[in-house]
Amino acid sequence: MTSSPEPSSRPAEPPVRRRDTRLDNYVDRYAVRTHGMTASAIRALFAVANRPEVVSLAGGMPNITDLPLDVVGSSLQRLVLDDGRVAMQYGSGQGEPMLREAICEVMGLEGIAAHPDDVTVTVGSQQGLDLVTRLFCDPGDVVLCEAPSYVGALGVFRAYQCEVRHVGMDAEGLSPQALREALEVLRQQGKRVKFLYTIPSFHNPAGVTQSEQRRREILAIAREADLLLIEDNPYGLLGFDHEPLPTLRSLDSELVIYLGTFSKTFAPGFRIGWVLAPHAVREKLVLAQESATLCPPVFSQFAVAAYLRDHDWRGQIKVFREMYRERRDAMIAGLADHLPAGCTWNTPAGGFFVWVGLPAGLDAQAMLPRAVTARVAYVPGTAFYTDGFGSRFMRLSYCYPTPERIIEGTRRLGEVLNREAALHETFGTVGPADPAGPALPYQAPRPNQS
Amino acid sequence: MTSSPEPSSRPAEPPVRRRDTRLDNYVDRYAVRTHGMTASAIRALFAVANRPEVVSLAGGMPNITDLPLDVVGSSLQRLVLDDGRVAMQYGSGQGEPMLREAICEVMGLEGIAAHPDDVTVTVGSQQGLDLVTRLFCDPGDVVLCEAPSYVGALGVFRAYQCEVRHVGMDAEGLSPQALREALEVLRQQGKRVKFLYTIPSFHNPAGVTQSEQRRREILAIAREADLLLIEDNPYGLLGFDHEPLPTLRSLDSELVIYLGTFSKTFAPGFRIGWVLAPHAVREKLVLAQESATLCPPVFSQFAVAAYLRDHDWRGQIKVFREMYRERRDAMIAGLADHLPAGCTWNTPAGGFFVWVGLPAGLDAQAMLPRAVTARVAYVPGTAFYTDGFGSRFMRLSYCYPTPERIIEGTRRLGEVLNREAALHETFGTVGPADPAGPALPYQAPRPNQS
Repeated sequence: MTSSPEPSSRPAEPPVRRRDTRLDNYVDRYAVRTHGMTASAIRALFAVANRPEVVSLAGGMPNITDLPLDVVGSSLQRLVLDDGRVAMQYGSGQGEPMLREAICEVMGLEGIAAHPDDVTVTVGSQQGLDLVTRLFCDPGDVVLCEAPSYVGALGVFRAYQCEVRHVGMDAEGLSPQALREALEVLRQQGKRVKFLYTIPSFHNPAGVTQSEQRRREILAIAREADLLLIEDNPYGLLGFDHEPLPTLRSLDSELVIYLGTFSKTFAPGFRIGWVLAPHAVREKLVLAQESATLCPPVFSQFAVAAYLRDHDWRGQIKVFREMYRERRDAMIAGLADHLPAGCTWNTPAGGFFVWVGLPAGLDAQAMLPRAVTARVAYVPGTAFYTDGFGSRFMRLSYCYPTPERIIEGTRRLGEVLNREAALHETFGTVGPADPAGPALPYQAPRPNQS
Repeated sequence: MTSSPEPSSRPAEPPVRRRDTRLDNYVDRYAVRTHGMTASAIRALFAVANRPEVVSLAGGMPNITDLPLDVVGSSLQRLVLDDGRVAMQYGSGQGEPMLREAICEVMGLEGIAAHPDDVTVTVGSQQGLDLVTRLFCDPGDVVLCEAPSYVGALGVFRAYQCEVRHVGMDAEGLSPQALREALEVLRQQGKRVKFLYTIPSFHNPAGVTQSEQRRREILAIAREADLLLIEDNPYGLLGFDHEPLPTLRSLDSELVIYLGTFSKTFAPGFRIGWVLAPHAVREKLVLAQESATLCPPVFSQFAVAAYLRDHDWRGQIKVFREMYRERRDAMIAGLADHLPAGCTWNTPAGGFFVWVGLPAGLDAQAMLPRAVTARVAYVPGTAFYTDGFGSRFMRLSYCYPTPERIIEGTRRLGEVLNREAALHETFGTVGPADPAGPALPYQAPRPNQS
């Protein structure tokens, strides 16, 4: 079982477990929040999906094969010899000043003017989201998320016992009208929203990007409603078509708390992300970080800073961008060639993910075991909702497998879908009825295939 | 302001802050837990204490100058070249299997027989404690701690809105009688204890160690009361006198959750600790870790594993032990030479800390600014209590400064205390009355000086 952020192709651990059948003697001692922590039903399946013969279009792991290992290796050796006794010591709870300065330089590429003093380093942006939620959310507090939203964020909100309300999206991302409606419903219910969590660029899992106009509309609503926004931007620098769009944070520094990470532009294994937050929030974040970890990994911070100093990291991001563009192209071509009629998808302009809609009657979660048997894996859309929606959708990722494997994966997926469709025609019982509700799953507006 | 785990001698950040006087516009949005997160009053003072002219006996930073930087540097370079694409990638939420195997070998030195499957890697043992508390504690839940207890643990319990009850100690650590009484009082109040947090070996801050007999008594009470124990053991391998005593976990694998760390036996900057927990708890811990960070720092895990493989780490621990023993000896000699009559302290058999009691009428917290002015720093005893006790005590650490600096520090401290005592004799108003309550501060049983 690999428990990386998302199902991945890392070697699975030995499947033999001891005492698997033992009862949990501690169950009556757990906190209320712990009873909501259960391993997902698809977890076991992904252990199988990690086998090399399976093409996994499920994982969210970046492809870091292009990183210059010789440069990083020498850089880290020199780091240990020159600064080892500082880099291996405890550090600042807020994060090392020289890294926070470099982070401001990185954010500058997306139009953000920030002071290093307002940056808090975190254990990946996942921990940034955990700490922000810790600061703001009591059990029962309402958090708004896109429909669909990042599975790891939904896990954090569940851990803090938040009530998640999904807000609909369209081809330009989060829908302003849906946001207004959601706020109005909550106002009528007398519930206050603690924040809106959004991924404006190259959305995970929906693959869409908020236009600049859309961003300004969302911010106008936020200002009117005094709504705090959490902007999660792991993929912003990995766009294929043009310069990055202005981040929400670059347009408003008071209502936006910004989450960044080096996981996709450098490497995830150092676990270095950050939160850029208004000063008062930043002070609380540092106290929360000290309570959570004393300080984020110091050696990792020095390692990332050394990489940024010793390597052409801007050039490296361009290399990554071209590599992911090629994979995106392979996937879109593969989908057009192999997916049956009635499927829909969008063409992401960056990032890692394509969001695929299935014909009526098919159920992505129900068919997953059959797909894995056919040696292809994906994440069913239901993972990205807290409310049971998404069964007619799946997230495909093109970040990790080679273009050839991606195309082979879409071919296998097409076969599975054709069989499912045939079954459905014959028996009419393969999938559940289409979901309907306040926040319908995002559906690509133009079926790319008739 | 350095925000390492404890006041340290790392260079302070530039004191110039922007918008320091701005009001907190977010204050009415915070969670209830966040209102309890406030920077300690002594924090600003420690920024001053970090100046080189001040002898800081306040910090808990290990002295890692003896680490072989050439070995570590080459080891990490080879790691990047050989395994860089795995070590810099996402990893398992539970932690890397090869490191968990090595952790079991390390724990074997303290009598623990464990399976790697029951180990969860954490961002230092601080995060271990955070995750364990997250699993078990709802707001208002009662947690038992020693009197005094580790300041970082008290911070975690506060962050989870626990009710901390202190349990008295004597020269052999946590008092069984005090524990029985505390349990009885809580039983009468109808309150259930979620767990007892204890540091059996070389206690932080009290410096005492539970004898083997004492450990068995505590476990017997725990079994009778069905009380879960959290054993925090950062210093267990750093004893000066004999082989490590059996850990609580080696005597009971069902009621003890064990926290370990490489921060004191190797280096804290990698932020690698671990939790050894019964299987059912471990499963929840991994889910909590995934929610908190996706996975603990992968590169750090590979780095620690490479160090354990490439270096005589057992020999290195012996080197550390001798180095700390010499510093302990310097501190005890300095205290005997310089502290005024009426002071008490114990002679720790390992670890980093000496717990000093002051003569009646003196207040360690009130006199701290005067001590820092006299260029010596310590942590006032009140930091180690949640209930206001401890004002007549201070924690001195001998881990970081050289023996010469330690002796100079005790000399300066002696001067300060003499002046305080003279003031008290003249005016009688220097300190508060002696505290009294259910869990009196631990006081060394034999004054080491008349």
